[in-house]
Amino acid sequence: MSSSQGFAPSVNALAGQLVDNLARNAAALRVSVSTGAAGERRIDLGANVPGGLEAGRQLGEICMGGLGTVAITSSSPLERWPLGVMVHSSNPVVACLGSQYAGWTITDDAGFFALGSGPARALSRVEELYKELGYVDHHNKAAIVIEGETPPPPAVATKVASDCGVRTSDLTVLYAPTGSLAGTVQIAARVLEVALHKAHSLHFDLNNIVDGYGAAPIAPPIPDFVKAMGRTNDAIIYGGRIQLFVRGTDAEAEKLANALPSNTCAAYGKPFADIFAEVEGDFYKIDASLFSPAVVTVSNLDTGSSFHAGRLAPDIVDASFK
Amino acid sequence: MSSSQGFAPSVNALAGQLVDNLARNAAALRVSVSTGAAGERRIDLGANVPGGLEAGRQLGEICMGGLGTVAITSSSPLERWPLGVMVHSSNPVVACLGSQYAGWTITDDAGFFALGSGPARALSRVEELYKELGYVDHHNKAAIVIEGETPPPPAVATKVASDCGVRTSDLTVLYAPTGSLAGTVQIAARVLEVALHKAHSLHFDLNNIVDGYGAAPIAPPIPDFVKAMGRTNDAIIYGGRIQLFVRGTDAEAEKLANALPSNTCAAYGKPFADIFAEVEGDFYKIDASLFSPAVVTVSNLDTGSSFHAGRLAPDIVDASFK
Amino acid sequence: MSSSQGFAPSVNALAGQLVDNLARNAAALRVSVSTGAAGERRIDLGANVPGGLEAGRQLGEICMGGLGTVAITSSSPLERWPLGVMVHSSNPVVACLGSQYAGWTITDDAGFFALGSGPARALSRVEELYKELGYVDHHNKAAIVIEGETPPPPAVATKVASDCGVRTSDLTVLYAPTGSLAGTVQIAARVLEVALHKAHSLHFDLNNIVDGYGAAPIAPPIPDFVKAMGRTNDAIIYGGRIQLFVRGTDAEAEKLANALPSNTCAAYGKPFADIFAEVEGDFYKIDASLFSPAVVTVSNLDTGSSFHAGRLAPDIVDASFK
Repeated sequence: MSSSQGFAPSVNALAGQLVDNLARNAAALRVSVSTGAAGERRIDLGANVPGGLEAGRQLGEICMGGLGTVAITSSSPLERWPLGVMVHSSNPVVACLGSQYAGWTITDDAGFFALGSGPARALSRVEELYKELGYVDHHNKAAIVIEGETPPPPAVATKVASDCGVRTSDLTVLYAPTGSLAGTVQIAARVLEVALHKAHSLHFDLNNIVDGYGAAPIAPPIPDFVKAMGRTNDAIIYGGRIQLFVRGTDAEAEKLANALPSNTCAAYGKPFADIFAEVEGDFYKIDASLFSPAVVTVSNLDTGSSFHAGRLAPDIVDASFK
Repeated sequence: MSSSQGFAPSVNALAGQLVDNLARNAAALRVSVSTGAAGERRIDLGANVPGGLEAGRQLGEICMGGLGTVAITSSSPLERWPLGVMVHSSNPVVACLGSQYAGWTITDDAGFFALGSGPARALSRVEELYKELGYVDHHNKAAIVIEGETPPPPAVATKVASDCGVRTSDLTVLYAPTGSLAGTVQIAARVLEVALHKAHSLHFDLNNIVDGYGAAPIAPPIPDFVKAMGRTNDAIIYGGRIQLFVRGTDAEAEKLANALPSNTCAAYGKPFADIFAEVEGDFYKIDASLFSPAVVTVSNLDTGSSFHAGRLAPDIVDASFK
Repeated sequence: MSSSQGFAPSVNALAGQLVDNLARNAAALRVSVSTGAAGERRIDLGANVPGGLEAGRQLGEICMGGLGTVAITSSSPLERWPLGVMVHSSNPVVACLGSQYAGWTITDDAGFFALGSGPARALSRVEELYKELGYVDHHNKAAIVIEGETPPPPAVATKVASDCGVRTSDLTVLYAPTGSLAGTVQIAARVLEVALHKAHSLHFDLNNIVDGYGAAPIAPPIPDFVKAMGRTNDAIIYGGRIQLFVRGTDAEAEKLANALPSNTCAAYGKPFADIFAEVEGDFYKIDASLFSPAVVTVSNLDTGSSFHAGRLAPDIVDASFK
């Protein structure tokens, strides 16, 4: 375990408190709590309930395993879209990659498909990523977050709980569609996570990422899934900004800064929905380097040097959010 | 009860926790707690005590019945007046109209006059508005907020408690003058409420208002009541901005956006104190359409369309705040 | 005791709760808690641990004796350095001067030297300043904050506890280097305090300072102490802004506003490290009037008048932060 992540406590224990708090205030937050057929707790934050900005804010903090703060702000730098989120974390690698990243592919034979995010991933550890993170969680309760209209069917819930080593009755499934209020907020709150994920893809040593913050505008929700996916991506790609505090050499920090922003990708320059249409809806044909914030600052704690790259594209955000 | 407001919990129960917390920290917040002659609890946040920005922030959340968040920010878009508030609510219709709106006219034969706001209104339900809101509160304690120098006399306190169906000893009266620090903050925190109130006047279906946020600069306090009223109004009319998330058709959303901002009013364009002087201090001669934020975005959750209208008037804010 | 400070509760009692909370979440915040040889509790927030922005935010609130709020924001007005802090206080004189100011010179014969800040100062009251503040704290636990690499040696810890009238085991020493993440945040959070300190130097009646807020960018940490000192000073001197709410005459308020900003100092106009080099590292040769925010608004609660002075210098911040 690295020195940066070595201290990390249980993300499921920390997030569990936030989940219980959300459930306790369900009426005020307009989310619904129910029990699935397999005995798991289900919390709907936007599929069949209104949910809201505040429900999404809390969902964002749950995704980060209780190791991050998500704030609703009115200070996005985009003239027409001042509503935004600001996120920071006391341990961004564990919070964002060890918990928040939607890296767990959950499927069944009947056609259920979802990308699971949140602290449960750190219990199941089915992803390769955990070998590199060196983070292990141990807890008797698990929380998984699904960006979608429906919770997993009973057999899948049972399997998720089993993979996490918890009883199904100790699993909480939280879900909100991409185009719901809670969904659009929790996705905007991924602005820091996508930067960490890209840093990882660029083979930057995760042990050298110490801290960071991110900010992004909140895309107006839209029911159509593809359009909602487009807007929430554009919020980060063309309207997001982050600062990472790293260790290592200035050469490494500068290389990271230059490679990190979205405008390093050839596809940069038009709304995500247009890019998606050009590849005929085949997500995996899109160059993954597109998925990162518009503006990046990398500050080297070992030398005091900072490197800036990228730029905001308010016109593309306007075209996307309309 | 509509689907939007159907889940709402007791605003007096939620606000009661905030009121008790305020009372417990009275020394730190420089507010005073006392017992009135009728047995009611009185909390002075700015008449005979310093109070402060933080006391006003908490008062704003109490006004919203515990269903809203009020944050002090340094990111108002006004160059000379960056200090501001940012408010959002998990249930804006109940928080703003069912609780925060100053709609309860409280008088007695001896000349006492006040507009009561806050959660107690939802217990007394003396206003026509509640028939439309379909929101009923049931709680054994009540909190009422008065923008003024003095709390109500004993007979009035007794009447208020009686109208709320609580014992007088279970009523808390919170008060702060318009020109106090706490007063100016809690009024700025009404930026979302005035938009909802105007939407209601425009006959927009309240059931279709799902969420929203607002931001406004904090007017510097001034002792003179008329000037303080002028500045706190100008903060919203010329410096406020909001975004509403609604349901319905785009035609309805666009109509609302275009009708909502303050510049739809013929009187728009000069400090409120000047407008007030022109009508010789007869408040009811002022076109009520003036009372709304400067900049408005209405986003339709059913279609994903957003409509923008209005504009900030920093020059008029400068002339008003001086 | 003045009316402004008369209500102030125990800063050590309030901060003690924050310190205990910090210690309880040590793993999540990546700070370390240990017991010194004299029995005192030591909390390292950045010397031999990563610490972070959030640890620094909490340290800032501890410095203010629990009477202030420190928020991490993404809305600093500086184009390249949006990451900032926003601080406000329900009792700025007690929070900033009675607790946060680094006014306690702590030394021993073996060459240990530190400037102690935080609530413990209000127990020891070894500084002249307390005669003017008229604030006395009484509490059986003390917390002292040191900007530095090392905690005090046992004899010094014992002496500090003794000066505070508490057992050594009831003393907590919190420390973080100037060039650490927690250090740079807690120093930025002094933007309001330096304004109050300068107001005091200018003989403005502290009883007439009622409330205020401040905001400053967060300087990127740099290991070299002199450079770190330079950057953290520049964050306030060239990038900080505050608003004070005062009582008294407009003449006094205007005089204060005009005298307060950093650009009233002849040395203003270049990075602090350059100024420091010119005086060959003799801190006391620097005109103390330099240490204040770049932009100042003084609002008079007695008249409603506001006075603006100073200006931001983004170019100098850029040259300093690089």
